Amino acid sequence: MLAGGFGGARMAHGFVLLGDRVELAVIGNTADDLELHGLSISPDLDTVMYTLAGLANADTGWGVRDETWSAAQMLARYGAPTWFRLGDRDIATHIVRTQRLRAGERLTDVTARMARDLGVAARLLPMSDDPVRTKVRTDQGWLDFQDYFVRRGQADDVLEVSFDGIDRARPTPEVLQAIAAAELIVIAPSNPFVSVAPILAVPGLLPALQQAGARTVAVSPIVDGAALRGPAAAMLRSLEGRESTSLAIAAHYQGQYPGLIDALMIDSLDRAQAAQIGALGMAAVVGDTLIAREPDRQRLAEEILTSARSSWSPAR
Amino acid sequence: MLAGGFGGARMAHGFVLLGDRVELAVIGNTADDLELHGLSISPDLDTVMYTLAGLANADTGWGVRDETWSAAQMLARYGAPTWFRLGDRDIATHIVRTQRLRAGERLTDVTARMARDLGVAARLLPMSDDPVRTKVRTDQGWLDFQDYFVRRGQADDVLEVSFDGIDRARPTPEVLQAIAAAELIVIAPSNPFVSVAPILAVPGLLPALQQAGARTVAVSPIVDGAALRGPAAAMLRSLEGRESTSLAIAAHYQGQYPGLIDALMIDSLDRAQAAQIGALGMAAVVGDTLIAREPDRQRLAEEILTSARSSWSPAR
Repeated sequence: MLAGGFGGARMAHGFVLLGDRVELAVIGNTADDLELHGLSISPDLDTVMYTLAGLANADTGWGVRDETWSAAQMLARYGAPTWFRLGDRDIATHIVRTQRLRAGERLTDVTARMARDLGVAARLLPMSDDPVRTKVRTDQGWLDFQDYFVRRGQADDVLEVSFDGIDRARPTPEVLQAIAAAELIVIAPSNPFVSVAPILAVPGLLPALQQAGARTVAVSPIVDGAALRGPAAAMLRSLEGRESTSLAIAAHYQGQYPGLIDALMIDSLDRAQAAQIGALGMAAVVGDTLIAREPDRQRLAEEILTSARSSWSPAR
Repeated sequence: MLAGGFGGARMAHGFVLLGDRVELAVIGNTADDLELHGLSISPDLDTVMYTLAGLANADTGWGVRDETWSAAQMLARYGAPTWFRLGDRDIATHIVRTQRLRAGERLTDVTARMARDLGVAARLLPMSDDPVRTKVRTDQGWLDFQDYFVRRGQADDVLEVSFDGIDRARPTPEVLQAIAAAELIVIAPSNPFVSVAPILAVPGLLPALQQAGARTVAVSPIVDGAALRGPAAAMLRSLEGRESTSLAIAAHYQGQYPGLIDALMIDSLDRAQAAQIGALGMAAVVGDTLIAREPDRQRLAEEILTSARSSWSPAR
């Protein structure tokens, strides 16, 4: 699975809930990573990790459940920036990550060990051990991703996206191995522009996917015209001039990565778009993609597996 | 004031409680400092800072009041060492300190800014910006100070003390200026061997004290034969073969730093030792040195000031 944070974590959770029948490797977006208070923070990896560990904070959609906020209060007293909220449990993750990265460990190894320590059964793989940082151009100029996303609350129209460092980034051996060994590639219902795109932009990663024998299914992050969370709908408009529909998601993927995606899983609310999606050259699979609740996550994962066993074709 | 953590913090607090009548500079021991989880921790400076900020944790004698322990629980899940307990608020201090030190700021400046942000009126000065680390020799061999002090609970007899890095350490300009400007030097009721000795061992610091015009008063950390906290009593025995008495404290200081101390403030419970202390060549000033409560801290500070205005002499 290629995954961002929120939607990726929930979708990944669905497959984990299927137990031993699935061997899941999640290739996580690290272009949202940031350094704050001298700490190395990987928001998307952590959201997946916490969710798969059963530690996700359902109230916030990020961070750890049963969280406390004492350190943040103290950081504020010291005049440290507080716009990126860090809970106390979450801070421990960043402390451990930072210490191990500074000691020379790869993010891949640091992440694997932390995920294991939290009891995560799936493999959680950073897309790269090399730093990549998403920037977005707005009418305020170029902004760091988390500045746009958290500090400014996604209030600006995004006119352009770039991934600083992407040219020098390499996919890890673990990522390439997971892709080569995969029986199914799932692109999570994550933001195509700032969660999935940076993963696919890592040099060599897209060719690896294209050469892999596995079928690829994307799950649409748009349901009934809206993104479940975050700026995907707004970005479809501001970056590509599209409506915020699952059809637009299909058109985006087919336009950017021709032939990559065999099928798009769309919500039953969007079933009327299935024929047009099919006409773009990928199967449209209709299901229930609202996966806030755990049973719904598991059910959707099951539906994806069932569907993948059939022969996807545009005419389906 | 030269100060370690626990006793130094309480004594310093007494002077702060005297308000504008006193301009206090605390020269703090940094030889207890440690690096843990990649964080730079200065336990003695922090105990003084939190105490003077009114944030001290009275239950523990260290750390911050109203503390939570979420990060520590998470650190434990990651397999990080947990013998040195770090509360969530306290961790924020270490995060900020570490970030600023890594950015190249001096510990002196980092400490001054944090203390100011917490509302500390006194100047809090690390004895040096250069790293010094106390090691103690036991029958287990040489141990890091916090390993002996916290992890092993001061259970080992200390046979020797050394201060790694002391030869290359320099007192800061701020420390030398504070000493030169002082009207009174107070050596806090801190452990003479591992709190006061490292300060006095910083090359150039003892000569600066000796050349300063100010009178010097030490407050005995021993009351009625016992140390209020920590291993001072045990160290008097194991390092110098002395009884654990205020007289032994006087003999220690006079033996190690002849002529440095003009007066030793001892508790009224130890008044019988006054004549013998006087015979060692310093005044013995009798007072009430138990300063757990704030009014007692203020009263002792007042007594020290009153006493310092008189002419101390051994015959007094």
